[in-house]
Parts: sequence; structure tokens; C-alpha cells
Amino acid sequence: MEEQQPVLTLAQCAEMVGGELRGGEGDALVRGVNDLGLATASELSFAAGAGRREEVLASAAAAVIVPSDMAEIDRPVIRVANPYLAVTLVHGHFLRRPFTPAGIHPSAVIGYDCRIPEEVSIGAGVVIGDGCRCGRRVTVRAGTVLGEDVELGDDVLIHANVTLYPGTRIGSRVIIHSGAVIGSDGYGYATDGRGRHHKRPHVGRVVIEDDVEIGANTTVDRATFGETRIGRGSKIDNLVQIGHNVSLGENDLIVAQCGISGSTRLGDNVVMGGNAGVAGHLVIGNRVMIAAKSGVHGDIGDGQVYGGLPAIPRDKWLRVSAITGRLPDIHKEFKKLCKEVERLRAEIERLQGTEHQS
Amino acid sequence: MEEQQPVLTLAQCAEMVGGELRGGEGDALVRGVNDLGLATASELSFAAGAGRREEVLASAAAAVIVPSDMAEIDRPVIRVANPYLAVTLVHGHFLRRPFTPAGIHPSAVIGYDCRIPEEVSIGAGVVIGDGCRCGRRVTVRAGTVLGEDVELGDDVLIHANVTLYPGTRIGSRVIIHSGAVIGSDGYGYATDGRGRHHKRPHVGRVVIEDDVEIGANTTVDRATFGETRIGRGSKIDNLVQIGHNVSLGENDLIVAQCGISGSTRLGDNVVMGGNAGVAGHLVIGNRVMIAAKSGVHGDIGDGQVYGGLPAIPRDKWLRVSAITGRLPDIHKEFKKLCKEVERLRAEIERLQGTEHQS
Amino acid sequence: MEEQQPVLTLAQCAEMVGGELRGGEGDALVRGVNDLGLATASELSFAAGAGRREEVLASAAAAVIVPSDMAEIDRPVIRVANPYLAVTLVHGHFLRRPFTPAGIHPSAVIGYDCRIPEEVSIGAGVVIGDGCRCGRRVTVRAGTVLGEDVELGDDVLIHANVTLYPGTRIGSRVIIHSGAVIGSDGYGYATDGRGRHHKRPHVGRVVIEDDVEIGANTTVDRATFGETRIGRGSKIDNLVQIGHNVSLGENDLIVAQCGISGSTRLGDNVVMGGNAGVAGHLVIGNRVMIAAKSGVHGDIGDGQVYGGLPAIPRDKWLRVSAITGRLPDIHKEFKKLCKEVERLRAEIERLQGTEHQS
Repeated sequence: MEEQQPVLTLAQCAEMVGGELRGGEGDALVRGVNDLGLATASELSFAAGAGRREEVLASAAAAVIVPSDMAEIDRPVIRVANPYLAVTLVHGHFLRRPFTPAGIHPSAVIGYDCRIPEEVSIGAGVVIGDGCRCGRRVTVRAGTVLGEDVELGDDVLIHANVTLYPGTRIGSRVIIHSGAVIGSDGYGYATDGRGRHHKRPHVGRVVIEDDVEIGANTTVDRATFGETRIGRGSKIDNLVQIGHNVSLGENDLIVAQCGISGSTRLGDNVVMGGNAGVAGHLVIGNRVMIAAKSGVHGDIGDGQVYGGLPAIPRDKWLRVSAITGRLPDIHKEFKKLCKEVERLRAEIERLQGTEHQS
Repeated sequence: MEEQQPVLTLAQCAEMVGGELRGGEGDALVRGVNDLGLATASELSFAAGAGRREEVLASAAAAVIVPSDMAEIDRPVIRVANPYLAVTLVHGHFLRRPFTPAGIHPSAVIGYDCRIPEEVSIGAGVVIGDGCRCGRRVTVRAGTVLGEDVELGDDVLIHANVTLYPGTRIGSRVIIHSGAVIGSDGYGYATDGRGRHHKRPHVGRVVIEDDVEIGANTTVDRATFGETRIGRGSKIDNLVQIGHNVSLGENDLIVAQCGISGSTRLGDNVVMGGNAGVAGHLVIGNRVMIAAKSGVHGDIGDGQVYGGLPAIPRDKWLRVSAITGRLPDIHKEFKKLCKEVERLRAEIERLQGTEHQS
Repeated sequence: MEEQQPVLTLAQCAEMVGGELRGGEGDALVRGVNDLGLATASELSFAAGAGRREEVLASAAAAVIVPSDMAEIDRPVIRVANPYLAVTLVHGHFLRRPFTPAGIHPSAVIGYDCRIPEEVSIGAGVVIGDGCRCGRRVTVRAGTVLGEDVELGDDVLIHANVTLYPGTRIGSRVIIHSGAVIGSDGYGYATDGRGRHHKRPHVGRVVIEDDVEIGANTTVDRATFGETRIGRGSKIDNLVQIGHNVSLGENDLIVAQCGISGSTRLGDNVVMGGNAGVAGHLVIGNRVMIAAKSGVHGDIGDGQVYGGLPAIPRDKWLRVSAITGRLPDIHKEFKKLCKEVERLRAEIERLQGTEHQS
């Protein structure tokens, strides 16, 4: 059976994204999406901002998805409110393929009492522990290890060399990238009078809700008791550390190399920039934004934007940063002022002397 | 053979932790430990601080381990000096199981001249290089790779998908979490006149002493010559980087995402907060504490507490941070003062004019 | 066939590094290289700086490679301009072994349409996807997974438990350490009006040029379209994050735990200190140096040295840091000055009163 290449007309593309086709033939065919500079005459492209007008004109693309506020332009375009979202939807459509189950590779090792439907692709060298359950259309790539009693929802994609510790719960449409470790013991010790650290047992688990994506080599620790939970639709980048008993809300964005310490709770639609850190036992509200490389040491209310080390409200942080950069100059002015005051003091003393003389 | 569930009386629990049982029946039975909010009537729980009184009262737990200084409370409690340590010991007791060797999985690949006792559990897909030696009661989970000439002590637990490079030495009761890489080449190059970097051979090894725990996806580089060494009882969290020829003391705590550069030596009982970094070739004394996200660029003496970027003594750092946050206000005051001085200068000149006139 | 241990005379060593042998027999034999403190009488050693004179005298080494500017010393030495480079070359010579292919381990799983010469070493449990091509003298250690259509050049060394996603291109003489993940999806989502994040397809690849080394647990994301590219001779340490569509120049040094965000381009011979970060869509010039733990938010021109959070030119950063550390003292002086001005104001008012009285 030959694989059918998806084809769309420009009119279909425009309709799919609720956009307006201008300057192009509605029945012209496109077969894919590419960057402005790489696209051919049978591909669609896009410009995220109105300022990329020259590149839009120079592109060989059949049509370009542009923002509604881009000035009139003499080439086929599809005008939309959000080009980034529009191209994501169209591109996803072109790449969509029916799930074709490859079954379980003969070199995979499957434990006892597992429930795995036929409609799966389990790669070479995969190891699945006793009592695991898989949903439908699950893909587990080579070298991945599932401990006992792991549960995967439908349409899950686990890339190669991932480790899911025993008891982990994974929702539907979750994607986990290579090297990620889910469910390792949290970092918890009780220190005795001689300075020796006694390991606290970690009997909780990790729960990852639907539509979450987890980046390469990211680590999510299991709870001491109860759950570490990643809320529905949250997207975690590479090399992120999520401590024990942390809970993420829905649709959070956690950029690479962030760290969230134990028992901290994030609200929904939180954004953490790269390598930001949040201390333990904090409550971070909905729609909070934390700048890259910031360190948060206290609770943050809904909708706040924080930055800095330690993190403070963004407006104040920008003012502080601006002044900090000018400190050498301000310090010079200060020393000048000190001298001026000294001079005035001398003048006054002279005046006082005059006064006494008079 | 059915697994026997451990059971303790409240009196036994109290005795085990050197605590005082109040308000409960000494012969009441408990079968486990849980969080205050999750514990049932057959479980023990704990409150780390005296302030959690309401939760202690509300908990369904058979008894609650509380700090000695918590005010009298009308429910069964066990009073101890250190509830965190006490609950760790009791919980560990409940979870203790005799080691049950599963043997070597048929899919594991074992090299030549290895010395592996029967009393081990080697998981599916494990690869053990030539000349490795295992102690007793060792567990190596699926997908882990040991290079040639690796040595593991007794009661070692290596989780899935770990990599131990050739020549690594692991002491007894060591735990290594998934994705950790021990013994990779250090980052050392010699740069020639044309800017090209020539790799320095790394012929040393990594030595991990007894009772160390290493977190998920942490990396420990082998020494250029000699050893990189992790001292007895030290606990390293996830995603930490330990450079070549570093040596850690005993009972150090290195929280997630810290980095320690080449040849630096830490003393005993050092604590590094999350994502802190220490530059290379430094000496950090015993009982030093380094705040999260700090960057250390110089030696630190015994017992010092450092923070900041670059790190300075904590007291000073807190004072600097406090003033830095107030810089916009202070700068306003400064500009006001400049104006006031300018005004005074004018007044003085006027007085001087008057003087000349008089 | 017995393995022949390489042996060199001191005269050969001196010649190899363009150095001058002093105080030693040119035909004395050495069999290896070691640290000053560890070297035996049949080994060579080195001192990187002229200040290590005492250790050079105390060392048992047959000869010590020292910098040309070290004062005359009464023991065999080889004087060179760059001891670090010299010892790297000699040591590399001692360790050089002809490639001895071990073939493909029977437990490895090789896909369809792969092109793998006989002259390779493919370890146990390795999984190679359909359509992969290997150069000559390639080593792939146990547990590593290559997706479909991966290409490796000659003399490549991939350590254990590495993951190369489909389509990745690896040049010749590349070394990749354990746990590294090359070609994972970039972090790109389009957010709709309800705050839900839609995954952008990532159809580009990663290209790693010749002579690159990549550290343990480092992650390099594939491009959205086109390529993420690591330039020839660049060396990347452990736990580094390279975002989608980033391009590194030649001979860059990226120290552990650095992060480079999407679409940023680095020039040649750039050095990033540990845990430094660069924001997305920036252009960093040739020979730029970025201090450890800095955060770069703007383009940087050729040859600049930057540091700080946010990063600024190094000279300014050092001045700002120096003053920041003195802020508590300066603030005290400022408050004293305020009082002094207040006192002068009173004096002036008194003088004005006197004036009015007079």
C-alpha cells in the first residue's frame, strides 16, 4: 500500500484557519509547509510578524500566512489573526498519519499481568514491568523501561531510553522525550545528631495528565506520600527538575533547565523562562510569568510577572536593574556631592567666622 | 509464601524513636506511615513543626509523631525531639523487606571474567562489561550498562538506564537513580595556536564511597589522572554536574542542578542549594552552606554561609540584597539631596553677596 | 597477539612537542604520562605554570614538561611554550591504539537498508533504525539507540545509552557521551485563545560536524525547519541544552549546564562558562567570552567579553559588582551626608536669621 501524500487547496487551507485568501488561486494545490526561505512553489509558508514583508515577497511559497495587520502585498497570502497558530494547525494536518501498529518487537521484555492491546508499537529492547496497562495506539520506542504497575493512556508516545519508575500514571496523548526520568525518589533525608542523612522513603507516585509533553533528560520525582502531578496540557522542556510533591496546573510552560523544589504548587497557564528556579513549599498563582534565570523565594499571586535573583515584581526589577547598571556613574556623582557638601561646610564656617567678627 | 505485612504497636514505635507516647493505647497496632491528611486509623503520621496543631487534631492517624515543644493536645501523640528523623526511622522499618534475589535475567549480557554472586537481581537488557565485580544483594535494573572493570559493593541499588563507565568503583549501600552517568570524560582540552581544541586523555576514574545516593540524570566525570571521589554518606540530587577530579567530603548535600567544576574539594557536611555553582580548583571547608543559585569563585572556610552571584558571606549578601531592592527609592532621595545641596549653595552665595555688600 | 605498550625516548618526546630537553638523558625511556604527584620514574609529567617549581622538583617523573619561563631547575625537564598542549599531544600518542573492530553484537537490533561496514564495534543491546549509514571504525556502545536515517561519519565514538533521533547527521571523529539526546523536538507551541498550547511540528534535523565532542546528558533539539548545527571542532560539556535551529560556529567551548535558546547563532571560538544562558534569536560574534552563570539578552559583537545577569561588558560588570558589594557602606555614608546637609541647612537658616537681625 502506497502512502498517500496529503494535499490541500489554498482555499481549504484558508478555511481551516479561518483566514482570508488574497491574490491567489483558491484551487492551487499545496503539499506541505516550510520556512519562508526554504519553501517551494508547492508549499505554504508563514510570517509571524508584520515586519517580515520583504521575506514574504521574496519567498517562493505558493502562499504565505500573514498577520491581518500586514500592509497590502502583491503575492498570494492568507490573512489571519494569529499566523503562528494557523501554520501550526495546517502543518499538523499535513503531517497527520493514521496510527500503524508495529506490534511488540521480539526483543522487548514484557512482565506478568500486563494489559497491552494489539494496536501498539513497542520497540526493540523495551522492558515493561509486571502489571503495566497500555491504552490504544501507544508507541514506546527502543530502550525505554517501564517499572511495575505503570499506566499509559491512549495515543501516548514515549521516545527511546526513557525511564518510568513503578506506579507512574500517564494520561492520553502524552509525549515523553528520550532520557526523561519519571518517578525517581525525591530528595528527602532526615539528619541525625552526627550529621548523617537518613533516606526518607518515597511511597507516592507521579501522575501526568492528558496532553502533557515532557522534554529530553527532564526529571520528575515521585511524591513522598501522595502525588507529584503535572496538570493537563502543560509543556515541560529539556533538563527540567520537578521535585517531589510538586503540582503543576493546566497549560503551564516550563522552559529548559528550570527547577521547581518540593511541594510547590503552580496555578494554570504559568510560564517559567529558561533556568528559572522556584523554592519549595510555595504557591504560585494562575498566569504568573517568571523571567529566565530568576530565583523565586516567596508566593506569587495570580497574573504577576516576576524577575530577578531573588525575584521581585518585574517593573521594580527592571528599575532596579537599570539603576544597578548605572551604579559606577551614580557613585561618582555621590563622591562629587560629598566634596561639594564639604566645600559648602567650609564656606559656612567662613561665613560664621565673618559673622563672629562682624 | 505470603509476604508478611510488618505491624508495630504504638509502644514499640515510641520506643524505636526514643519518644513518649501520650493519650494512646500502647498496644494499639499500626501498619504503616502516611501524611497527616492521608493517614488512616491503622497508620502513624507526623508533624515536623509545632505550628501544625490543627492538622494533627484533624488527622485520622492512630498516633502522630510531634515535636516535644508542641502544646498539650487531646489525641494520641508520640513526642520526640526530631519528628522528621523519628518518622524516617519508623517508616523505614515498615518498608524493610528481606532481599529476594531474582538472579540474572536471560536477556542481560554479562562479559568475561566477571565475579557476580548468585544473590543478585540483574534486570532485563542489562549489559555488564568484562571484569566487573558485584557484591552481595546487588540490584541492577533494566537497561543499565556497566563498562569493563566496574566494582559494586554490597546492597547496591542501580536503577534503570544508568551508565557506569569502565573502571568505576561503587561502595556499599549506594543508590544510583536512572539516567545518571558516572565516569564520563572530564571537560579538558588544550587549545593550539589556531584555536583548535585537543582532547586531553582522561585516564583516572570515579570512586563513590559507601552510603552515597546519586539522583536521576546526574553526571560525574572521571578524573584526568587519579580519582573523582564522592565521600561516604553524601547525597546528590538530580541533574547535578560533578567535574573531573572533584572530591566531595562525607555527608555533603548537593541539591538539584548544582555544578562543581574541576579539581574543587568540598569538606564534610557541606550543603549546596539548588542550581548553585562552584568554580574549579577551589577548597570549600566543612559545614559550609551555599545558597541556591549562588556562584562561588573563591575558597570558603569552615562553617561559613555564602550566597549571591558572585557569592559573599550571607549576612552581607542579605544586606546588599535589601539595599539593592531599594535602589530606585534611594536614587530618588539622592537626586533630591543633590537639589537641596544646589539650593544651599545658592543660599550661601547669596549670603556671601550680602556679606560683601554689608 | 599481545598488545604492544608504546614506548618513547625523552628525545622523541621533546621532538614531538617542539621542546628542549634539559638535564636528562635523551635515550631514557618513558611509557606514559601522569600527574606530578603520581608519576613514576618511567613516566612523563608536566607543570602548566611556572609557579609549580617545588612540585616539579619533588616529582619522581623521568622528565617534566615545563613552561619556557620557568627558572633553571636541577632535574630533567622539557621546556615548551605551552605545556598543557604539549602533554596532551604526548599523552594522546601513548594512548593511541589501532581500531580493533568487535563487529556487531548478536543482541544488537539492526533495521532494514542500513549501510554498516564490517570494520565497526556495535555493542550489546544497541538498536539501529532503518536506513542508517555508518562510516569506518565506528564504535557504538551498549544500549544506544539510533532512529531511522541516521548518518555517522568515520571514527565516531558513541558511548552507552545515547539517543540519536531520526535523521540526525554526525560527522567524522565525533564523540558523544552517555545519556546525550540529539534530535529531540524543539520547544515550540502556538497558544490559542483558551490558553491551550498546540505543538508545532519539528521536521528539521540536527547536524553535528567533524571533531565535535558532546557531554553526558546534554540535549540538542532538532530544527523546526532546516537544521540545528554544531560547528566543526566545538566541544560541549555535560547537561547543556541547545535549542531548535541554534547554530554553533567552529571550535566553540560550551561548559556544563549552559543553555542556548532557539535560533541563536554563535560565531567561532566562542567560550561560554558554566551554567551561562543565551536568549533566543540572538547573534553572538566570533571569540566572544561569556562568564559563568551569566544571562545574555542581546547580540554581542566579535571579541567581546560579557558577564552578569543580565550580561553587560565585563569591565563594566566588574565595576558594578565591586560597587554593589559596597552598597551597605555607601548607603551609610549617604545617610550621614543627608544629616550633614540637614545640619548645614540649619546653619544657613541661622545665618539668614542673623542676617535679618543685623
